[in-house]
Amino acid sequence: MLRHFRILTLCSLAALFCLVPAQRGLAQDKDDADDIPVSDATSQCLACHEGLHPGIVAGWRKSRHARITPAEGLKKDEQARRVSSTDIPEELQETVVGCAECHTMRSGKHADTFEHAGFQVHVVVSPDDCATCHATEREEYKDNLMSQAYGNLVNNPFYQQFVVSVNGHMARTDTGKAEFTPSDPETYAESCLYCHGTKLSVNGTKTHDTDYGSFDVPVIEGWPNQGPGRINLDGSKGSCTPCHTRHTFSIAEARSPATCGECHSGPDVPAYKVYDLSKHGTIYNSKHGDWDFDAVPWTVGKDFRAPTCATCHISEVVSPDGTVIAKRTHAVTPRLPWRIFGLIYAHPQPAKADTSIIVNQDGIHLPTTFDGDIAMDFLIGEKEQDARTGNMQAVCRSCHGASWVEHHWARFENTIKVTNERTRAATKVMSEAWKDGLATGLDKDGNPFDEYPERLWTGVWFFAANHVRYASAMAGGGDYGVFERGRYNVSERFIELNDWVTNQKIMKQPKGK
Amino acid sequence: MLRHFRILTLCSLAALFCLVPAQRGLAQDKDDADDIPVSDATSQCLACHEGLHPGIVAGWRKSRHARITPAEGLKKDEQARRVSSTDIPEELQETVVGCAECHTMRSGKHADTFEHAGFQVHVVVSPDDCATCHATEREEYKDNLMSQAYGNLVNNPFYQQFVVSVNGHMARTDTGKAEFTPSDPETYAESCLYCHGTKLSVNGTKTHDTDYGSFDVPVIEGWPNQGPGRINLDGSKGSCTPCHTRHTFSIAEARSPATCGECHSGPDVPAYKVYDLSKHGTIYNSKHGDWDFDAVPWTVGKDFRAPTCATCHISEVVSPDGTVIAKRTHAVTPRLPWRIFGLIYAHPQPAKADTSIIVNQDGIHLPTTFDGDIAMDFLIGEKEQDARTGNMQAVCRSCHGASWVEHHWARFENTIKVTNERTRAATKVMSEAWKDGLATGLDKDGNPFDEYPERLWTGVWFFAANHVRYASAMAGGGDYGVFERGRYNVSERFIELNDWVTNQKIMKQPKGK
Amino acid sequence: MLRHFRILTLCSLAALFCLVPAQRGLAQDKDDADDIPVSDATSQCLACHEGLHPGIVAGWRKSRHARITPAEGLKKDEQARRVSSTDIPEELQETVVGCAECHTMRSGKHADTFEHAGFQVHVVVSPDDCATCHATEREEYKDNLMSQAYGNLVNNPFYQQFVVSVNGHMARTDTGKAEFTPSDPETYAESCLYCHGTKLSVNGTKTHDTDYGSFDVPVIEGWPNQGPGRINLDGSKGSCTPCHTRHTFSIAEARSPATCGECHSGPDVPAYKVYDLSKHGTIYNSKHGDWDFDAVPWTVGKDFRAPTCATCHISEVVSPDGTVIAKRTHAVTPRLPWRIFGLIYAHPQPAKADTSIIVNQDGIHLPTTFDGDIAMDFLIGEKEQDARTGNMQAVCRSCHGASWVEHHWARFENTIKVTNERTRAATKVMSEAWKDGLATGLDKDGNPFDEYPERLWTGVWFFAANHVRYASAMAGGGDYGVFERGRYNVSERFIELNDWVTNQKIMKQPKGK
Repeated sequence: MLRHFRILTLCSLAALFCLVPAQRGLAQDKDDADDIPVSDATSQCLACHEGLHPGIVAGWRKSRHARITPAEGLKKDEQARRVSSTDIPEELQETVVGCAECHTMRSGKHADTFEHAGFQVHVVVSPDDCATCHATEREEYKDNLMSQAYGNLVNNPFYQQFVVSVNGHMARTDTGKAEFTPSDPETYAESCLYCHGTKLSVNGTKTHDTDYGSFDVPVIEGWPNQGPGRINLDGSKGSCTPCHTRHTFSIAEARSPATCGECHSGPDVPAYKVYDLSKHGTIYNSKHGDWDFDAVPWTVGKDFRAPTCATCHISEVVSPDGTVIAKRTHAVTPRLPWRIFGLIYAHPQPAKADTSIIVNQDGIHLPTTFDGDIAMDFLIGEKEQDARTGNMQAVCRSCHGASWVEHHWARFENTIKVTNERTRAATKVMSEAWKDGLATGLDKDGNPFDEYPERLWTGVWFFAANHVRYASAMAGGGDYGVFERGRYNVSERFIELNDWVTNQKIMKQPKGK
Repeated sequence: MLRHFRILTLCSLAALFCLVPAQRGLAQDKDDADDIPVSDATSQCLACHEGLHPGIVAGWRKSRHARITPAEGLKKDEQARRVSSTDIPEELQETVVGCAECHTMRSGKHADTFEHAGFQVHVVVSPDDCATCHATEREEYKDNLMSQAYGNLVNNPFYQQFVVSVNGHMARTDTGKAEFTPSDPETYAESCLYCHGTKLSVNGTKTHDTDYGSFDVPVIEGWPNQGPGRINLDGSKGSCTPCHTRHTFSIAEARSPATCGECHSGPDVPAYKVYDLSKHGTIYNSKHGDWDFDAVPWTVGKDFRAPTCATCHISEVVSPDGTVIAKRTHAVTPRLPWRIFGLIYAHPQPAKADTSIIVNQDGIHLPTTFDGDIAMDFLIGEKEQDARTGNMQAVCRSCHGASWVEHHWARFENTIKVTNERTRAATKVMSEAWKDGLATGLDKDGNPFDEYPERLWTGVWFFAANHVRYASAMAGGGDYGVFERGRYNVSERFIELNDWVTNQKIMKQPKGK
Repeated sequence: MLRHFRILTLCSLAALFCLVPAQRGLAQDKDDADDIPVSDATSQCLACHEGLHPGIVAGWRKSRHARITPAEGLKKDEQARRVSSTDIPEELQETVVGCAECHTMRSGKHADTFEHAGFQVHVVVSPDDCATCHATEREEYKDNLMSQAYGNLVNNPFYQQFVVSVNGHMARTDTGKAEFTPSDPETYAESCLYCHGTKLSVNGTKTHDTDYGSFDVPVIEGWPNQGPGRINLDGSKGSCTPCHTRHTFSIAEARSPATCGECHSGPDVPAYKVYDLSKHGTIYNSKHGDWDFDAVPWTVGKDFRAPTCATCHISEVVSPDGTVIAKRTHAVTPRLPWRIFGLIYAHPQPAKADTSIIVNQDGIHLPTTFDGDIAMDFLIGEKEQDARTGNMQAVCRSCHGASWVEHHWARFENTIKVTNERTRAATKVMSEAWKDGLATGLDKDGNPFDEYPERLWTGVWFFAANHVRYASAMAGGGDYGVFERGRYNVSERFIELNDWVTNQKIMKQPKGK
């Protein structure tokens, strides 16, 4: 019966659709009750798609895109302006940004463009489409490591060994080894590439039989995906929707810590969980209902009392008198001197967003050797680190005195040093195990992630030392610095690794000894 | 001094109580300042209990029960109506639903009914009481696995072995084994049965000496408990309060994801945690303050922008034009084709809510064998699975295009297949260990959950593979599909199990080899 | 360019600063648009610091301190009054509580007092400063274990061994042992002492060159820190800011569960996480947006529907008719009969806040022996426990019937007994390992936390048994009582410890056996 209802509704909509060309004005009247200028093309989209995907359209109707034209946006004061392009085509300026504006934009560039109801439509809107109005943000984003997240993983042979040991088919061999062989692309798309982004490609078309008739639509491999490093069908890299989710594209959502938490929750990147229990996070948790997450620029103290992720890393932050405390940056890097996760040792940020080019002194695609020597050619130097530290500390000083900030930072850099030392201690035991043949590492062409002691070693730096550094960076983070995968786990994994090595040596010692 | 204050207040209330019969009108005036028709019986309850348990009464006063009579409820349009019974007794229709209405309802049926201040009162209100006004919801709930959660655990011998290895008294035997013996009922009530529900029974009465005099009240074993599968004192199964908490019985609360999280948080059923970091969850976290959680029916896009648990699994969801996208269901099953947690392998949903009847080909109370062969006689078939998939996908399509939904679903079913393969690989190693006598399993009448390698094996399917499937089902879930107990842990537990078996074989090999 | 803007602004402020003495009235007019009486001294602070730290000043401006004078506070009804001192100095009564009021208070007592712009300013405001207006709260807090949290850790030799095994430098010795040596003070400040509080000390001064000129400011070791047991520069112990964060000092924030979660999140003290998924927590999560967190006193049912941490442990809780259900207590102890975390066995609360004086029958600084015998001389007796239980249950009864509360409490005390039994079973295996020389414990002057079996043993009581008790205490807590580090982990750690001991015995048995 439910299905019946639905089909009837769809049929009515289909009937409406046939009439659209003649009734464009009507559709527009209906959609634009408040004199919102929706383009004819978008009105035609809405005529069917509002019934098909009411959630998509309702989300869009509540968005700024649906209520403000680019021309109106351009009239705002520079600090409050949300469009950064100065050359928005005139034909786009006087209607709001609707379905057709984005999904028929630059249609010749997109491999998934298909003819649909008289339009050249593409499914996947890319950052290069968004750049039509948001050119600065798009340019900045090219310098953001996240825009290269696909290649930074897929083109790094060292990490490909990690991937196969995590996602791969598992078997016990006759010799008693755990053996891993690569898994399927769907698994990859759903695991690592969910956050890193997939590489999209068109694989023919498929006929969809709908109540509106039959449509040939492109079959897109790797879709759906909103990873921030997605490889798009126009060749561009990245995606704006992980933070500004379709079809509302909200700045408020991008400033919410939960939004970053989708990919930065841990245990590999525990930023969100650490934030959640930090002093900043607990203030947020108790009071954010009173804050203004939509204001542009974002005023310290007035719009919010404690920072979210965006405050420290991305947003244009100003003081109540309008002084710029930190400039907006979709590159993120300008306030980041150190890279504290994902690699064996913490180290200066990479000089370029494409990290797959990094090779250490031992020829491995890592920014340090296993002993901790830094591949400085590929990383930023001290001067750049200092400049970035200065940018970040300017944000800190909005709410903290100079000596508070200084002492906090000294502790943070001490923690980088100390966690690197702890990692070095564990790596020394692991290297001994590899050398002694208790496990098979890179030196014998083995996968360094597929044996039990190797996982204990990985636990030290990939999980526990990370937690310690994040808790330190955020000046707290409750137990994440100690018992919740922090220092307690750095030492516990070391103790366990050490115990394993000692036991193996006993078990494998020649009889009679 | 505090105690003094309190006693004085109670004495005043006691004095008031004595006067109640003569002053019924007065009490009613006071309680019903806004012309809310409270029954005389309920007014008498309130006269004392408002002072004794102000939180209970305040919660009720804010509820719909306290403000709308059944007669008014029946006048609502069908889609907006919250009472589903068409035969509500006339004597209940014209007063609001207060203390006496529920706690003196069907008093002859309840084993805990006792005489109290002239009324036949029972402590534990059951779904069969609620059915007086909410007949449809109660009927549907009988088909919900949760209504059978007590027996599905307690009557399953396989899972009883799990229970004893988790809750039991622990000791090291002379032969160096870890031995478990059953624990006490209080521990059981507080652990597994907290969510599964306890079996209530009356064990005599106890005299309570209060400031109002002495009262004999029934002593109820297994109380308090609000497990969704509770066995009630009228013989009915289930409880409405886990989701609609007493004494507000709010639909908004039942639609909040945290409410489901009380029992579905993990690591055995990580639904809530996965949701919390999924794209749906992050939109909820950043924006739910603006949504309407009370609207009936629930309109996509208008009342909420992203789904909560209830949206996809239970609620009546409609589009802004009133089209029904999904019918309300307290059975939950109509939108569930697969069962993805709690058992060794993911498999089609059980055909009946009582799963304790399921026996696999090896005579074990499981829907699959240890090798993964499915006990199809007890599970739904492909046709029913397809129908349910269709129901669920209708909800998805509210906000996602058809090819998005299709590709998502293909990945989800691939993940079911792949996680089952991973589990099979681990089970093969475990079975070898059982066969070789390295551990004592079912084949030798051992408990398959009380030895270290058995816990590693359990970790693969009961925790890690679950996380992978939940992350897949919810199209994301951040790290829960990978490093936060996801694929990383599937492989790590396997590696550790494999290592343990290999070491045992070395240790136990005959000397001289 | 950004830096340029900033310097210009600072220069303008510097210019303003020079004019302040002559323009005091002007500054006051500007700051006190609503006739809020700010002192001249505070106006001078604001003239510069509002530009330097806009977030600090904006936070303060929204606070009660910035809007109500002590004289106005004193006029409130006793139940609604937030100042408890009756001898507030007259010179402080008629202006709001601003920068100068706190940071120049009792300047002779503070070791960090320095001359600054004509004032004797100290950086770190202490509870003894706050006591000027909040004398009762400060006195009560002296009886709070948290006020002694520094010494309770640092002066306990047993726990110092734990600290070194968690934070220490790690190395594998030639004999294959994991060896730990003490780490640096910065690491200590950032880990354990982040919550326990650091000991502050002044180590000379440092010249800060700023746009306002050069200032000599004290260098404070151990700063920043807001641990509740901080040792302050006036010799006082404690800090008010962990709960009432500077510079808003909000009661609403202190009543938010997240605020407690900063230090009580686990896995050592999992109170917040357990709360979050308890029935109380899920009601909070779905409905707290409608509650009043600022009301004094706090009225059950009217201001909130479910308790937060503060409700049960600290707040003045009243019924809608004004009856006091629980008196406010910054000592916390009056409602706490049992101590359920941090020590090997659960036991009655310590009699004194300073627990470093506790020594058990074996001469170890613990409230029980390893066998579980209680050092009763240092703990509260049964009578005091009963009184405290009564105080807590009065809060429970606001929303729960007497038999509900009674049965809940019986289960909780049963859980204390049962988890102690489980811990005893694990300790017996551990003690056997120590005795047999498989590990080196206290009996052989070893650190009982630095070997793998010792960490398994620690896992039983320091983490898992804790979770079980917290889940029980809070009547739920979802999976925290079972699979999420609850009973499942109590038994798993035991199984693993047992397996380790058994394997060691096999490996170390004399050849030929």
